[in-house]
Amino acid sequence: MTAPFSFSVSATDGAARRGEIVTPHGKVATPAFMPVGTQGTVKGLTPDTVRETGADILLGNTYHLMLRPGAERVAALGGLHSFMNWPLPILTDSGGFQVMSLSALRRLEEKGVTFRSHLDGAMVELTPERAIEIQALLGTDISMQLDECLGLPAKRDEIERAMQLSLRWGERSKRAFETRARAGYALFGIVQGGDDAGLRRQSAKALVDTGFDGYAIGGLAVGEPQDVMLRIVEETTAALPKASPRYLMGVGTPDDLLQAVARGIDMFDCVLPTRNGRHGTAFTRYGAINLANARHANDNRPLDEQSAHPAAHSYSRAYLHHLTKANELLGQVLLSTVNLAYYQALMAGMRDAIAAGRFDDFCAATRAQWQKGDLPPLAA
Amino acid sequence: MTAPFSFSVSATDGAARRGEIVTPHGKVATPAFMPVGTQGTVKGLTPDTVRETGADILLGNTYHLMLRPGAERVAALGGLHSFMNWPLPILTDSGGFQVMSLSALRRLEEKGVTFRSHLDGAMVELTPERAIEIQALLGTDISMQLDECLGLPAKRDEIERAMQLSLRWGERSKRAFETRARAGYALFGIVQGGDDAGLRRQSAKALVDTGFDGYAIGGLAVGEPQDVMLRIVEETTAALPKASPRYLMGVGTPDDLLQAVARGIDMFDCVLPTRNGRHGTAFTRYGAINLANARHANDNRPLDEQSAHPAAHSYSRAYLHHLTKANELLGQVLLSTVNLAYYQALMAGMRDAIAAGRFDDFCAATRAQWQKGDLPPLAA
Repeated sequence: MTAPFSFSVSATDGAARRGEIVTPHGKVATPAFMPVGTQGTVKGLTPDTVRETGADILLGNTYHLMLRPGAERVAALGGLHSFMNWPLPILTDSGGFQVMSLSALRRLEEKGVTFRSHLDGAMVELTPERAIEIQALLGTDISMQLDECLGLPAKRDEIERAMQLSLRWGERSKRAFETRARAGYALFGIVQGGDDAGLRRQSAKALVDTGFDGYAIGGLAVGEPQDVMLRIVEETTAALPKASPRYLMGVGTPDDLLQAVARGIDMFDCVLPTRNGRHGTAFTRYGAINLANARHANDNRPLDEQSAHPAAHSYSRAYLHHLTKANELLGQVLLSTVNLAYYQALMAGMRDAIAAGRFDDFCAATRAQWQKGDLPPLAA
Repeated sequence: MTAPFSFSVSATDGAARRGEIVTPHGKVATPAFMPVGTQGTVKGLTPDTVRETGADILLGNTYHLMLRPGAERVAALGGLHSFMNWPLPILTDSGGFQVMSLSALRRLEEKGVTFRSHLDGAMVELTPERAIEIQALLGTDISMQLDECLGLPAKRDEIERAMQLSLRWGERSKRAFETRARAGYALFGIVQGGDDAGLRRQSAKALVDTGFDGYAIGGLAVGEPQDVMLRIVEETTAALPKASPRYLMGVGTPDDLLQAVARGIDMFDCVLPTRNGRHGTAFTRYGAINLANARHANDNRPLDEQSAHPAAHSYSRAYLHHLTKANELLGQVLLSTVNLAYYQALMAGMRDAIAAGRFDDFCAATRAQWQKGDLPPLAA
């Protein structure tokens, strides 16, 4: 029998929490970073490579998978875990964010959103109920409610309208999820409310009244400064139950992760480590390094000899520079791997520090290392 | 002390030979297939992945590496093996073939060839002596002489002129190689002569008189039908010493490999498994399979459940079809891996069959399996 979905906190340090989520496909150590597998793959990396970076959960994109290969097809093939050969937990978003950002032609109504597929031009309808159905067909461990996500800045009445619509969609999502509930599978609600703390608290309270297995904060990292984002995170987590996991969607930079964990966030996803890796940027304990820079052309040192991951210590900066300049696939693969390994090492470092009661020290030491910057160039 | 370069034949079956080459960076079991690492990388694959397909030697392209990152730079960084994190043997071509095929502006003279770099437009000179110097700077285990490679069809007097020039360049290459000879490192001559058996024999005899560690057959698979190629291979290998390795450059399809080994060839290189893999074609014991074909969209079977390599049995055809249609990097990575693993398994199968004295049976069984074609489609 599958254990029920659960979240337990084993240590706290200030607002930061160390914990564990139990899903049908395994446990997730929190704070957790989820690599993004948009089209059923973390771009360029085998599932084994992703696991070896330390990831124990992936994010899949409902929008992309519903259009290609299609949710019913994935279900017939045994579900997303089997399809992409990833046996560990998967969280999927609801598709709403990509409908808003990728579909030129769309119509938003109370019922849901209708949009034109960017692949074949077909008109597709996505409702709260269909989003739940799709995620069930994919077999995702953690489903997300459909919501409306606005960019910032936005007008307060527009933010409130979208927040209220998202709440109603959240209720419908929960009802739809309950009709097909399977032991251990979870549904998260999504707090909206833009950069308005009052609306965020109102959204959080209403979602908690409806009752979800976890709570996400959506509609951040959509154009606002970091301090605004962090203020909203802090105000929102204060309004969320301690016993449930909190997920900050689409965030972020390594510093965003430190800052948000300090404010009580347990889960993250972001394309930054893989997207920027494909474009020649490495995230390291020295900060972000642009491998296209000519300073690396003759540098035989690895990116970070102290890294536990071979991708960061088995290849020279000169080689990674060469691959980047030559636009070689292996450069994209290696830097994506380096970056995911760094993100996972950062999360593991935070988890250990919280358990040891020295989270602030860990953050300060990590930032100090970033601020010292990269290794000095080799003598000419 | 490094052992001298050596080649030994441990078994023969008809004209087919099983043997072993000893180089400073390890042994190569022959008949051998060398994956192509054009720009210091087998596109998209880590060195570990390439090794896990069974490869024990790689080919690097002098033309690409001399232009970027530059031979002197690679030497200063410790040589090509260290640069690309590949500790096993490397053979490099001389650059001549790519000068002819990739450089629009070039001037061919007795001294060498001058061409415009396709990267930055700089004029670059490549002579037999410089080609040897570059390969020594790269630290390649097996260097190739500079030659002039014509496409086919070509006029006999043009073929003869290029063949004679290549012979003179071969002598100069050998003299240059001897001035910097290091124990265990080898230089191969290249037989030219187009589709003219008499010119091929003349070229082979002259090269043998000069004396090389091994002999390549160049200027084939450049537009001629397979039967012409195989006739020239057969005539040429008959004129080459039994005690030296024979390398058929730039070949070929799986059937080309069977046919050429049957005629006494010991070494091959070709971009086919990796290039075609990047474009959605898998080479398997069922023959070539186009993963873009819609017949695979709902097919949960692996490409080849009997393959020893996880890339061929851990992912469904439906998933590989999805990755191919979505133009995902992982599709390129997995199919390149599948294809290199298939090529290496084919070589291993030939080696075992030669040792067991059943090479013809192996070829017949392999071809029969190809001709049966792919698995029948699943019932709808």
